[in-house]
Amino acid sequence: MTKRLGKQTVKLQNPPSVISYAAIVGPKEGNGPLGKYFDQVLEDDMFGEKSWEKAECKMLQETIKLSMKKANLTTEDINYVFAGDLLNQIISSSFMAREIQIPYIGLFGACSTMAEALSMAAIFIDGGFADFAIAATSSHFSSAERQYRFPLELGAQRPLTSTWTVTGAGATILGTTPKGNGPYITHITTGKVIDLGIKDQFNMGAAMAPAAADTIRAHFEDTGFKPEDYDLIISGDLGIIGVDLTTKLLKEMSIDISETFADCGLKIYDTEKQDTHAGASGCGCSASVLNGYLIKEIINGKYKRILFVATGALLSPISTLQGESIPSIAHAVTIQRTLK
Amino acid sequence: MTKRLGKQTVKLQNPPSVISYAAIVGPKEGNGPLGKYFDQVLEDDMFGEKSWEKAECKMLQETIKLSMKKANLTTEDINYVFAGDLLNQIISSSFMAREIQIPYIGLFGACSTMAEALSMAAIFIDGGFADFAIAATSSHFSSAERQYRFPLELGAQRPLTSTWTVTGAGATILGTTPKGNGPYITHITTGKVIDLGIKDQFNMGAAMAPAAADTIRAHFEDTGFKPEDYDLIISGDLGIIGVDLTTKLLKEMSIDISETFADCGLKIYDTEKQDTHAGASGCGCSASVLNGYLIKEIINGKYKRILFVATGALLSPISTLQGESIPSIAHAVTIQRTLK
Repeated sequence: MTKRLGKQTVKLQNPPSVISYAAIVGPKEGNGPLGKYFDQVLEDDMFGEKSWEKAECKMLQETIKLSMKKANLTTEDINYVFAGDLLNQIISSSFMAREIQIPYIGLFGACSTMAEALSMAAIFIDGGFADFAIAATSSHFSSAERQYRFPLELGAQRPLTSTWTVTGAGATILGTTPKGNGPYITHITTGKVIDLGIKDQFNMGAAMAPAAADTIRAHFEDTGFKPEDYDLIISGDLGIIGVDLTTKLLKEMSIDISETFADCGLKIYDTEKQDTHAGASGCGCSASVLNGYLIKEIINGKYKRILFVATGALLSPISTLQGESIPSIAHAVTIQRTLK
Repeated sequence: MTKRLGKQTVKLQNPPSVISYAAIVGPKEGNGPLGKYFDQVLEDDMFGEKSWEKAECKMLQETIKLSMKKANLTTEDINYVFAGDLLNQIISSSFMAREIQIPYIGLFGACSTMAEALSMAAIFIDGGFADFAIAATSSHFSSAERQYRFPLELGAQRPLTSTWTVTGAGATILGTTPKGNGPYITHITTGKVIDLGIKDQFNMGAAMAPAAADTIRAHFEDTGFKPEDYDLIISGDLGIIGVDLTTKLLKEMSIDISETFADCGLKIYDTEKQDTHAGASGCGCSASVLNGYLIKEIINGKYKRILFVATGALLSPISTLQGESIPSIAHAVTIQRTLK
């Protein structure tokens, strides 16, 4: 039986339940408006390791361990871990999976990875291929800066369109419906790669906005839902510029999401006080906001139904040097409190 | 209903059929023993582009287009493309998906990517989430060398344990059972990350052998199959050293695969005449051997049932510089001629 709905969406027949979730973040994120929501705030972003890359990997590992501990699950119970990150060859994820011995599917979707991983985990469970699966991702300000932009030691000035990469990791454990009490994953819209020609690597918001708008449009078209069917439509890390552009692009398509639209990248920092310019970004942004704040507030009843739309800019330093523009993608996942 | 079999394997209930397949390779691969099997052999590995990276991306795109053309399918018919490659931020795949407008799931499994993508595509179809899905990957000798090792212009000497990265791409289109006539994907064993401490980035075979052995062991344990149930067990790109080690490791576990064991990395080049040292490697190795040679020979009746085990070394130049060993993974997929 097909579970397809329109061109880009699937409707889950046995919507997987969130079984557990955890988020660990760095000191700057702990000092932000969502600080109290996270399971752990690092005192030092080196996390006792010798490099930022090793610190990021440890943060991802500890977040996954914590998510298992919170649900009394062990690696023996979990059938798959879906993970990815921003580092070359997704080493945070692969080295995590060396320690956490669960069959591993490595993903790359840049900052869309949390939604990508959540989609895979949900589909594997709904289809009967897994009882429990973990979706997880991480990013680290310092490892990302030196890989994508400049060595931190250089002290390069950041343009006002730039975003601040979140030091943080998030993990969600999904399980079959009878095993959990929600929230539930009900619909998944997988994005296409969209590139309207933005070449400025310090303006990811503008590059990703067309992809966010396209996936949100596809979601409404495929499902027949309307913006008012959601209490919250939240993008991954579009930042100030991307949110504005996405809202405008959707208005041109006669879709008005302005009432319920928010962005993880604008929630995690006090942009002005914390000097983060256009907002936050990085896989860890939407991952920690989802697994720190959003799922808790769904459970608490603040939100009944949200559309989680993580967005990714699929550039590399090499593609930028070779004169390429920035292809982007967004994946959307419907998360709701109950199955009614 | 669960489709799980043991700890790491799923048995597909409605085994997806191979609908189409294509492989495009570079000149060196065209001159090798499998040359006549490939759909297209490039005259020049720049493929009319300005950089090796752009050439790799074009090769992947053209391979996917060819696979669709061979089955009279368009992008409108295909629900998902699962793709990944060796380049940082998998730019060959992401830029491919910018041109080929199909909902895109980016993967990273290093040289295990063909089996990883095939697993995902098969599971999505078996579960009713897709009617058609593409699994594809690529690698390019020159883009890989300068990213992972040395600039080619340096003329660095290659140790005898090293392998030669294949310039090639492969794509498989899978569809629901009634749409095809086989071969069929029936079982999928997803690997764990294994790392026995090898640090020599010029000896990938030794690093990957324990992962290959572990996944093959898990496959037999989970399914109850025996080596003689397959006419061919073929690894991705272990090379001379890795094949030898994997055979020995499995013998220690009382599993003797020596009768039917082969390696894509030892099939694509005439190792001695073509001076490729320990054999071939790269995502494009197992992808082009599968989609050029193996599927054809299954259809022709040479093989009735094969176990395709692509292996990946999950290192990055950064992890090597930071003193890390090489974590590896292998995923196994059963492909058989008929459903009897």
